[in-house]
Amino acid sequence: MGRVTERRKVIRIRDGAVSTRPDTLVAEEPLEIRLNGKPLAITMRTPGDDFALAAGFLVSEGVLGAADELQNIVYCAGATVDGSNTYNIVDVKTAPGVVIPDITLERNVYTTSSCGLCGKASLDAVRTTARWTIDDGDAPYGDATHEDGTHADGAPPIRLEPELLASLPDRLRAAQRVFDRTGGLHAAALFSVDGELLDIREDVGRHNAVDKLVGRALQNGTLPLSRTLLLVSGRASFELAQKAVMAGIPVLAAVSAPSSLAVDLAAETGLTLVGFLRGASMNVYAGEHRIALRAAAAQS
Amino acid sequence: MGRVTERRKVIRIRDGAVSTRPDTLVAEEPLEIRLNGKPLAITMRTPGDDFALAAGFLVSEGVLGAADELQNIVYCAGATVDGSNTYNIVDVKTAPGVVIPDITLERNVYTTSSCGLCGKASLDAVRTTARWTIDDGDAPYGDATHEDGTHADGAPPIRLEPELLASLPDRLRAAQRVFDRTGGLHAAALFSVDGELLDIREDVGRHNAVDKLVGRALQNGTLPLSRTLLLVSGRASFELAQKAVMAGIPVLAAVSAPSSLAVDLAAETGLTLVGFLRGASMNVYAGEHRIALRAAAAQS
Repeated sequence: MGRVTERRKVIRIRDGAVSTRPDTLVAEEPLEIRLNGKPLAITMRTPGDDFALAAGFLVSEGVLGAADELQNIVYCAGATVDGSNTYNIVDVKTAPGVVIPDITLERNVYTTSSCGLCGKASLDAVRTTARWTIDDGDAPYGDATHEDGTHADGAPPIRLEPELLASLPDRLRAAQRVFDRTGGLHAAALFSVDGELLDIREDVGRHNAVDKLVGRALQNGTLPLSRTLLLVSGRASFELAQKAVMAGIPVLAAVSAPSSLAVDLAAETGLTLVGFLRGASMNVYAGEHRIALRAAAAQS
Repeated sequence: MGRVTERRKVIRIRDGAVSTRPDTLVAEEPLEIRLNGKPLAITMRTPGDDFALAAGFLVSEGVLGAADELQNIVYCAGATVDGSNTYNIVDVKTAPGVVIPDITLERNVYTTSSCGLCGKASLDAVRTTARWTIDDGDAPYGDATHEDGTHADGAPPIRLEPELLASLPDRLRAAQRVFDRTGGLHAAALFSVDGELLDIREDVGRHNAVDKLVGRALQNGTLPLSRTLLLVSGRASFELAQKAVMAGIPVLAAVSAPSSLAVDLAAETGLTLVGFLRGASMNVYAGEHRIALRAAAAQS
């Protein structure tokens, strides 16, 4: 269990020269997530941090929001013919009294909306399921913002310098240990709004890396992730924006492009969405009030 | 319907200079695939080629293998409150007599295997579901190979020159029209074993791009895709290797890294798997008998 990489023989061709050697690959194995004994979803993931992955997945789906709602997570034993454990099935048991929302889990899209299946329905589903509103103070359950811009908990509004944002991808890359050996992993990192690297996870699946970050936060009792920034190594899809919103993360930054629906979700929920974060350049697609644009904005 | 890109306002920051302009984003919308009226799966996709996407998805799942097994595909009408069509639900009707396999569709992993949930079970499921064996002659249903290496249908074995393989990523990139405008799309291209570009599809989801290629082939009656090569713009996951095998494609090449389970599936089914195809360099992980390694191999 828990092998993050595996070795396989590879034939290398470099400018016509051929050689054979062992190669390190990112491990990929299926993980079935059960909720109170009932199969809920299967994801192809890199083994490791499986409990955090399951917990984070359930945060994204609106099932869990705090550590005390989680009773325990166990590997299901006896899954193979000979009774040995594959460590590929985890069962999440919720605490007594936790109400399980009516979720239809098909690639994280909600199908029960009255308006039929469309992007708008997907946006509505996230907004109505989210436990926290995303504002600078990250006040749970929509606490009010004071007139001076501070929040009920006294936290000042988030205002990120572009220079700070520009420094993050290099720091993500430097912290990607498994990627260096395999080139086959997506990474997600959580930074404080002061630029401190709080956590980083790597996985063969982009959504899994984020789920592992969020699940760890749930286990540590740090949800909502109010004053943090989520940086992902690839593109910003609807699904990743959804996961940020569901964890109360106010800023999502991606090294590559966002999709239309990710931008729409950000605009609707107040999420700051930054794309193409490369060198000193970036695009801000939503929530620009959290970016310190200063006088330069006059050039627009 | 069918908008491949959408426009949104973006704030650009370039070395401190800030400007606002419209930006072109890749469109992302949910698509629900129904099989004979019953909801089967939902995928987040770029609109367009939806019928091909649905057909190709069902080839990957072992439901469809030939054009005459498909009766028709329609958009379900009346999906919204006002009765207008969202064009986000398609229903695939199979021809009379087509037997639907017992599929458990959760991110394309089969859970009914007797050995429990593990990588090995995933490999077995593909092998037992595949309609074609992957060999150089692509003989349907396992026709024998002659001693001289030709096949029942007289086709010579596939032998790809590394120089030809090395030329493909640039040609894929040149043909990626939407990527140029959005930077947000995965691409999959089908080449003949002589290097001719047969088809290319782009989508916000990597698996969707391949499904669209395969579905188009089903509709055109060209399955199995015997003497072709599938090139993908990103990494080679288990799921993409599965799709190649299910469509009878003998060679999968990826610009980036493969996963352990993709390599294992290739080794077990005879699929040639090439990774890190960049410049004059590449890694061959399985099925090296289809690559012309020549005398250079003596250097190993």
